[in-house]
Amino acid sequence: MANSRSGDSLLSRLVTILDAFGSHRSSMTISTLSRRVGMPLATTHRLVLQLLDERLLERDADGEVRLGIRLWELASRGSRTTDLREIALPFMEDVQAVVQQHTTLSLLDSENVLYIERLTTRGSAVNITQIAGRLPIHACSSGLVLLAYSPPEFQDDVLGRELVRYTEHTVTEPAALRRLLAGIRQLGHASVPGIIVPDTTGIAVPVFERGDRVIAALNVIVPLGEEDLRATVPALKTAAHGISRALGADRPRGGTSRMPRAV
Amino acid sequence: MANSRSGDSLLSRLVTILDAFGSHRSSMTISTLSRRVGMPLATTHRLVLQLLDERLLERDADGEVRLGIRLWELASRGSRTTDLREIALPFMEDVQAVVQQHTTLSLLDSENVLYIERLTTRGSAVNITQIAGRLPIHACSSGLVLLAYSPPEFQDDVLGRELVRYTEHTVTEPAALRRLLAGIRQLGHASVPGIIVPDTTGIAVPVFERGDRVIAALNVIVPLGEEDLRATVPALKTAAHGISRALGADRPRGGTSRMPRAV
Repeated sequence: MANSRSGDSLLSRLVTILDAFGSHRSSMTISTLSRRVGMPLATTHRLVLQLLDERLLERDADGEVRLGIRLWELASRGSRTTDLREIALPFMEDVQAVVQQHTTLSLLDSENVLYIERLTTRGSAVNITQIAGRLPIHACSSGLVLLAYSPPEFQDDVLGRELVRYTEHTVTEPAALRRLLAGIRQLGHASVPGIIVPDTTGIAVPVFERGDRVIAALNVIVPLGEEDLRATVPALKTAAHGISRALGADRPRGGTSRMPRAV
Repeated sequence: MANSRSGDSLLSRLVTILDAFGSHRSSMTISTLSRRVGMPLATTHRLVLQLLDERLLERDADGEVRLGIRLWELASRGSRTTDLREIALPFMEDVQAVVQQHTTLSLLDSENVLYIERLTTRGSAVNITQIAGRLPIHACSSGLVLLAYSPPEFQDDVLGRELVRYTEHTVTEPAALRRLLAGIRQLGHASVPGIIVPDTTGIAVPVFERGDRVIAALNVIVPLGEEDLRATVPALKTAAHGISRALGADRPRGGTSRMPRAV
């Protein structure tokens, strides 16, 4: 594959271009794009023309470029993410109807929590998650659930790193984090106040797939001080049980039935 | 850009590979993929390695390849489709709660109807739509709505073509289709029984964006003979009005307030 002088492959440069259309700007001029990706204007222009040709980018009415619907179609048709969120959506609506707080579904990708669905509730807590957005694994309730049910080697790897302390409640010390993870496995849910944003509590439970592996985390985000765990956790566990069943999990578990694993 | 002997650009061949992971198979071996895209095995293998490198494809537990979550993330973050469906979703849930039938949201792309969201109802009508799936513009209620509110040149273009007749109810004759479109604009909704599948009726209304342009169609799919237009159309129009307002439409219209345009 033809490589640029910088050694990046053409595909890698095309991906860099697509990646620049992040959450902040949905469309931009080619010169803004060029600055943002740190490539010469001529190179950026050439790559954009190729992406326009394949409709992975499109021009809007102002002549700026933006992600093309074709890219969304390619990514969504036949994607596991689409299947998972379509299966989970009715159960998420059930949770939202009962708990009346933001409800999210996320999975682990490249050691981050990737949010694949979010149902928002007007007038509810601050919600920093967004669909296709990421949060660090140790600093959100979904991440802690996904980490608690991960293989020990992966946990060791995460715990061995320098973890960012976002608030005074973020647990970063390895021994304390191990205790937190053991507690999550024992209870079958994570409930963590203010570990990334001071004013909110995240509550999350695991979703299982075939083979009894954890595939996702189901979560609600509640204003700090308004947690009603006795109501929220059963609602989340019931919905997670339903999603797990629909995904063909061998025997979805409620949490306390799952024996704590030594970490 | 380096072109293959067949003259296709590298990017175009990469897109062909990604496109092969359609609705039928979510993962496959490289040799199946090679047959499916009609490229030599060595070429397919080389392209797959590049896509694996960028995580646009990933290997599953059986060693087969499938679309990578990274592709979904690239496409979804900062995509208008994600924004539109997130804005529309609560209103779609309202429709589904009242009408209790499959509810879809779609838009026009490359002269097809592309479904970007679908809420399904168990035990309801046959539903051939799927998320990121397409249907022909003249053979579904959403397509007819999108066509009815399209510029005259686009309508002429569609009407000038040989249109496929899927059932005895599919309207393909240009003059009859023009009358149908005029009726849709006058009423502000399309209600068409069995034009692509004999046993179902589609009912659809337009969704407007800023500048009073139609951006999407909101639709429900009802078993033939169980249509209750007096209840369904107001539910759809109310929800479409809400979505249009949330999208910043200047003054969302209910239908009859919109003057029929000569076609």
